[in-house]
Amino acid sequence: MIEYRNLRIALLGAGSVGAQVASLLIEHGTELGERVGAGLELVGIAVRDLKAARTADLPEHLFTTDAESLILGADIVIELIGGIEPARTYLELALNSGADVITANKALLATHGPELFEIAEQVGAQLYYEAAVGGAIPIIRPLRDSLAGDRVRRILGIVNGTTNYILDRMDVEGDTLEEALAEAQRLGYAESDPAADVEGYDAAQKAAILASLAFHTTVPLDSVYREGILAITSEQVAAARRSGFVVKLLAICERLTDPVTGVEGVSARVHPALVPDTHPLAAVHGANNAVFLEAEAAGSLMFYGAGAGGVQTASAVLGDVVSAARRHVIGGPGVAESTRADIPILPISSVSTRYRITLEVADKPGVLARVATLFSEHGVSVEAVRQDARPDGASPTATLVIGTHEATESALAATVAALGATDVVSAVSSVLRVEGL
Amino acid sequence: MIEYRNLRIALLGAGSVGAQVASLLIEHGTELGERVGAGLELVGIAVRDLKAARTADLPEHLFTTDAESLILGADIVIELIGGIEPARTYLELALNSGADVITANKALLATHGPELFEIAEQVGAQLYYEAAVGGAIPIIRPLRDSLAGDRVRRILGIVNGTTNYILDRMDVEGDTLEEALAEAQRLGYAESDPAADVEGYDAAQKAAILASLAFHTTVPLDSVYREGILAITSEQVAAARRSGFVVKLLAICERLTDPVTGVEGVSARVHPALVPDTHPLAAVHGANNAVFLEAEAAGSLMFYGAGAGGVQTASAVLGDVVSAARRHVIGGPGVAESTRADIPILPISSVSTRYRITLEVADKPGVLARVATLFSEHGVSVEAVRQDARPDGASPTATLVIGTHEATESALAATVAALGATDVVSAVSSVLRVEGL
Repeated sequence: MIEYRNLRIALLGAGSVGAQVASLLIEHGTELGERVGAGLELVGIAVRDLKAARTADLPEHLFTTDAESLILGADIVIELIGGIEPARTYLELALNSGADVITANKALLATHGPELFEIAEQVGAQLYYEAAVGGAIPIIRPLRDSLAGDRVRRILGIVNGTTNYILDRMDVEGDTLEEALAEAQRLGYAESDPAADVEGYDAAQKAAILASLAFHTTVPLDSVYREGILAITSEQVAAARRSGFVVKLLAICERLTDPVTGVEGVSARVHPALVPDTHPLAAVHGANNAVFLEAEAAGSLMFYGAGAGGVQTASAVLGDVVSAARRHVIGGPGVAESTRADIPILPISSVSTRYRITLEVADKPGVLARVATLFSEHGVSVEAVRQDARPDGASPTATLVIGTHEATESALAATVAALGATDVVSAVSSVLRVEGL
Repeated sequence: MIEYRNLRIALLGAGSVGAQVASLLIEHGTELGERVGAGLELVGIAVRDLKAARTADLPEHLFTTDAESLILGADIVIELIGGIEPARTYLELALNSGADVITANKALLATHGPELFEIAEQVGAQLYYEAAVGGAIPIIRPLRDSLAGDRVRRILGIVNGTTNYILDRMDVEGDTLEEALAEAQRLGYAESDPAADVEGYDAAQKAAILASLAFHTTVPLDSVYREGILAITSEQVAAARRSGFVVKLLAICERLTDPVTGVEGVSARVHPALVPDTHPLAAVHGANNAVFLEAEAAGSLMFYGAGAGGVQTASAVLGDVVSAARRHVIGGPGVAESTRADIPILPISSVSTRYRITLEVADKPGVLARVATLFSEHGVSVEAVRQDARPDGASPTATLVIGTHEATESALAATVAALGATDVVSAVSSVLRVEGL
């Protein structure tokens, strides 16, 4: 039964997620309102260009270019514009007006999250952002609330659907990166300018949000180490598969201790990595997302689902709409964010991982000894060496694949530099980190 | 920084979960308190028998047999006694005293949940129960909040670790049910009286809670159809594996329409089922749990992790402690449960599923035609028939494995009765539902 006044909902943005949010709100608003005990009324959709927006299958009278007026007349504001401005200005206006705000804007949260949460706390409004990471996968509330009594050690996340689609096609179909990217663009999984995805910016924003939540501290975006997938070749992907690995772009957030300074801290980084083909993350295909997490008490958990897509992301936005509406009906300030601890953020040079390094070497006696000596001189311990079968047996060079034990980034970088400088190595053809062993 | 008064936490019960909650609270209480901005103080542990409880590695002065006094002096009460009484009385006392209550008591929630939530709402306290389903896996908040704007169509859950351990051993090790159960008991996964697990009572309680949350309606425990795993044989498990299936005890919650009356409603049921070996649930081994979910907008999601175990379940309880403490600090009534819809609960006879039926039949011409006619006379459409290879070629009987299209429970039951009565069928050796196709 509806006993509460209608709650007025303003939507900013009518892109693929926004259009779905609007049509689902119109279609299921009554049912959702009954769950809450209040009417849910979409009062307007602010867009930049009325003509472009009206192509969507939504009532024409809802569209407006006057975002400010729409915001000031709303109980709940949904921001799906993306990017920093004007999203930030609108979001601050909405919070300061006392409206609850829902956003899927990972760029804004990763760069200005702390200020926005502070405004929300000061005015007694709430900022909801379940859709900002992992699309439809519930990951914000599990980290903020359900796991808040545990100590998260490590997160390995496939949080960018576009790059997972590309790497999966390279693996399953044997595509080159260019072919897979073109196919992703054709299917709408990748933008015409794919930099945000393939260079790892999107994943880095999500890593900053996940790390901040998981470790209850502020992890700024500019502290997140980032490598994209543009250097990954189909040869690397095929060689990985032959050795029992899959290449994934991972967002990795972990607690660690710097091996030199002994400082305990946290780190967040995004880079391609080899994942054993038996790891649950290896089975995440297409544009899906998954967050694999290790916590001291809970052990290993995994959350899996659609990481992108308009209607899937709209599910998370509408969950936030229901939460915001419930808060209006029940009253009170809602759910608090964690008081942020002030844990040191450690740079990539503090991180130790395993590596697999592929070298082209002269095919003559004594080479392996020379290479092994170089590793040991730089403090990198070799776990396994394999000489790859060459299709052309007559080649004067051989391919060595070297797996290392855990080594620091700096030791590894020095080793690679030394390998490149020695005459027995004709090329360092691949250096990839290994995660999830 | 701690700016709020100490919050007094009372623990009822010091079993495997309770002891872990107590020692983690003592060990990490300061860190958790900093997340909240309040001190978290474990003020006592109520037990029935002081001598038995004091064997645990916890400060002796915390133990008391006076649960009532402990409850009345607490801000937050954690109930880990289990069962209906005295848990229910203590829980109501705690809620009526204005304390927030945390419970992992699925039996109590499945039978008296609505009354308890009503008391909580009336007095402005909160009832937290993340640990009641799926152990360490966050599933309550995702369903209650994150997915509250979506329409959940279907849940397939492996929610009982004991039976999953037993069925997995029968599959992987070839154990009989008795052998696997004995091993589960030896490892502490199964109680000396395993009825609650192997007869599906525990899973049915969890199904009632999941269905109530997912469909925002009240699904009483006595409406949950329940079959345990005691009738599952190692022959069935081995035959399933040969055909590309795995046997799992599933909790299934779904929206459906009764094919005869046309009534739209929801149903919850627990029974063993064949799951295709390619389904993500087939890869859930040992005592792990997983909840696979299909929602209209979100698509398919899966949540995976440790479903039982003292320390793992303690993670979920402590997450609730942090949430309850945050509510005290921030003030207000916290998070509202859904207004419950009044959706019809449909009985198992309204459910349609696929089946695989194994028959011993006379090995002579015309038998398949007779059998096929029986299926068609009862309105059950056959999808595939396979004659199983017999180890003893000279046998006068053959084994037929028949896969059906979706059929109602009643049509299937009538078919099985007719098969049993016909002279060409010497035995109906297995009837199993198929899910997740």
